[in-house]
Amino acid sequence: MKNVPDAAHDLVRAQWLEREAALRQGFAANGVIPADLPARRTGLELMQGILGGELPVPPIARTLDFILVEAERGRAVFQGTPKFDHYNPSGSVHGGWIATLLDSCVGCAVHTALPAGKGYTTLELKVNYVRGLTQDSGPLRAEGKVIHAGGRVATAEGRLVDPAGRLYAHCTTTCLILDLAPPR
Amino acid sequence: MKNVPDAAHDLVRAQWLEREAALRQGFAANGVIPADLPARRTGLELMQGILGGELPVPPIARTLDFILVEAERGRAVFQGTPKFDHYNPSGSVHGGWIATLLDSCVGCAVHTALPAGKGYTTLELKVNYVRGLTQDSGPLRAEGKVIHAGGRVATAEGRLVDPAGRLYAHCTTTCLILDLAPPR
Amino acid sequence: MKNVPDAAHDLVRAQWLEREAALRQGFAANGVIPADLPARRTGLELMQGILGGELPVPPIARTLDFILVEAERGRAVFQGTPKFDHYNPSGSVHGGWIATLLDSCVGCAVHTALPAGKGYTTLELKVNYVRGLTQDSGPLRAEGKVIHAGGRVATAEGRLVDPAGRLYAHCTTTCLILDLAPPR
Amino acid sequence: MKNVPDAAHDLVRAQWLEREAALRQGFAANGVIPADLPARRTGLELMQGILGGELPVPPIARTLDFILVEAERGRAVFQGTPKFDHYNPSGSVHGGWIATLLDSCVGCAVHTALPAGKGYTTLELKVNYVRGLTQDSGPLRAEGKVIHAGGRVATAEGRLVDPAGRLYAHCTTTCLILDLAPPR
Repeated sequence: MKNVPDAAHDLVRAQWLEREAALRQGFAANGVIPADLPARRTGLELMQGILGGELPVPPIARTLDFILVEAERGRAVFQGTPKFDHYNPSGSVHGGWIATLLDSCVGCAVHTALPAGKGYTTLELKVNYVRGLTQDSGPLRAEGKVIHAGGRVATAEGRLVDPAGRLYAHCTTTCLILDLAPPR
Repeated sequence: MKNVPDAAHDLVRAQWLEREAALRQGFAANGVIPADLPARRTGLELMQGILGGELPVPPIARTLDFILVEAERGRAVFQGTPKFDHYNPSGSVHGGWIATLLDSCVGCAVHTALPAGKGYTTLELKVNYVRGLTQDSGPLRAEGKVIHAGGRVATAEGRLVDPAGRLYAHCTTTCLILDLAPPR
Repeated sequence: MKNVPDAAHDLVRAQWLEREAALRQGFAANGVIPADLPARRTGLELMQGILGGELPVPPIARTLDFILVEAERGRAVFQGTPKFDHYNPSGSVHGGWIATLLDSCVGCAVHTALPAGKGYTTLELKVNYVRGLTQDSGPLRAEGKVIHAGGRVATAEGRLVDPAGRLYAHCTTTCLILDLAPPR
Repeated sequence: MKNVPDAAHDLVRAQWLEREAALRQGFAANGVIPADLPARRTGLELMQGILGGELPVPPIARTLDFILVEAERGRAVFQGTPKFDHYNPSGSVHGGWIATLLDSCVGCAVHTALPAGKGYTTLELKVNYVRGLTQDSGPLRAEGKVIHAGGRVATAEGRLVDPAGRLYAHCTTTCLILDLAPPR
C-alpha cells in the first residue's frame, strides 16, 4: 500500500471535493424531514430530496461536518473530512465520528430500498476500526450497501475509505422495517 | 416503567446536572493529552487529570457536548444532553451521537485499568439501540465497565441510561493493549 | 487469578456435575417441541417442560453434549463439558461450540420472558472470546440474561464461566419477537 | 427470488456434492495439526494439507458434519448439510451450527493470509441470521474473505449461501495475529 497518493488518487480526491462543493451550494438549510412525508415518498426519493436541496440537511451532518453525496437503490455514500474538532484525548479522530458516518451510510442504504409508507429503525451497529485517522486523512467516503432486504428486517454493510481506496473502518448493521402511519 | 419521572428521578436528574455544572467550571480548555504523558501516567491518572482541570478536554466532547463525570479503576461515566444539533433526518437523535458516548465510556473504562506505559486502541464497537432519544430525553449517562482485562486484549460493556434508569442503548467493545514508547 | 482450583471451586464443580447427572436422568428423548405448543405455553413453561422431562431435549444438545440446567424469568443457564470432539485444527475448542452454548443461553433467556402466543427469532449474535478452552476446562456454564425486553425486539447478554468464575467468552444478542399462530 | 431451484441451481448443487464426495475420499483421519507445524508452514499450506489428506481433519468438522472445500490466499470455503441432529427446540437448525461454519470460514480466511511462524486467535465473531434453515436446505457453503490484514489484527467477512445463491447468514470477525514459537 502506497502512503504517498499518486496522480490517480489526487484526481479522485479533487473530484470528491468538487462534488462536495457543488452539492453544498444547492443544499437546503438544516432541519428534519416533515413527519408526514415518509408515508408518501420512497426512501430513495427522500435521499434525492436532500441531495437536490428540496429537503433539509440533518442537523448532525452540520455538527459533525459530513454530507450525503450519492444515493441509489440499496446504496448510499457520505463524505466528510476529519478535523481537530473530532479528536479524542489521544490526538486522533474519535471513533464516534467514524461510527456516525458509517451508521449514516448503512441506515440510508437500507432506507433507499424501502417503498413509501415504510420506515426503519437501527437495532444495532457494529464497527471495526482498522486504521487511525487524523485531520490530514480526509476527505473520506463511507459507502453503505444493503446485504439482505427482508420484509421485517434488513442488514447492510459499510466501509470508510480515502481516495486511494485505503480502508479505515467497516461496519454492519441490523435494521427493523416499520409500517408508517398512512398519509392523511 | 413509568414515563413521568417521579420525585426520586427528579432528584437524580438535578444531581447529575449539578455535577456537570460543577465539573465544567473547573475544566481546562479543549485539546489533546501531551503525547509523552501516557508513558508516565496510568490511564486513571489521565482521566483524573481531565476531571480536575489539569489536562485538556478532548475536542469531540465540546463538539458533541458531553463530558466525563466519573472515573475509577475499570469504570468510566460520561454525561450528555441530546440536542437538536444531534438530530438525524427523521427527527430523533442520530445513532452516531449515542455511539460516541458509548465508545467513550467503554474505551475510557479500559484505559482506567492500564498502568503507565500502556495504551489501547479500539478494535471494534457494537451498539444496540433499544429506545429512541429526543432533545427532551436528557441528561443521560453512559457508564462503561471492563469485562475482561488481559495482557493484550480487553473487553468492556456500556449502557446509556436516564435518571430514571431507563435504558436507551448498550454496547460492548474489544480493545488492543499497546506498549507505549518509554518516556524520554 | 488462581490457576489451581481451590476447595471452594471443587465444591462448585461437584455441584454442577451432580446437577447435570440428576437432570439427565429425568430428561425425555431427543426431539423438537410440538409446533402448536408455543401458542399455548409461555417460554418459561416450555423450558420447564424440557428440564422436567415432559418435553424433548433438542437434537443439537445431544450432538454437542450440553444441557439446559436452569431457567427463570429473564434468565437461562446451559452447562457443557468441552471434549476432543469439539476441537478445531489448532488443538483447542472450536469457537462454534462456544457460540452454540452462548446462543442457547441468550436465546432462551429471551424466550423465558415471552408469554404464550409469542415466539422469537435471533437476528444477530456477537461473541467475544477472551480465554481458550481445552478438554480439561469443563464443566462450564453459559448464563444468559435479558437486557431489554420490548414488544418487538429483545436483547440479552451471556457469559461462559467455569466453577472458579473464570470468564472464557461473552456475548450479546438481538432477537425479534414474533406473533405465533393462535392454537387451533 | 425463486423458491424452486431451476436447472442451473441443480447443476451447482450436484457439483458441490460431487466436490464434497471426492474430497472426503482423500481426507485423513480426524485429529489436530501437529503443534510445531505452523512455525514452518504458511496458513495456506496447512489448509492445503487438510484438503489433500496430508493433515488431519479437525474433530469439530466430523461432529457437526462439515468440511473445508476451498482455500486460497485471503479466502476459505466450507460446506455442510444441515441435519436433524443440528436442530434447536423449535424445529429448525440451531444458530450455533451456522455460527460454527461461519467462524470456520472467516478464521481460515485470515489464516490463509499468514506466513509461516504466525498464528491467530479469534477475538470476536458477529453473526447475522437472515433466513431460517431446515434439513431440506442443504448443501450450503460458508465463504470467508479477508477484509483487512494488518500486522497485529485482521478482519474478515463470511456468507452462508445455498446453490441458488440465497443468503442464510453473514458474519464478520476480528482476529489477533500471534507470533508462534520458532521451529526447533
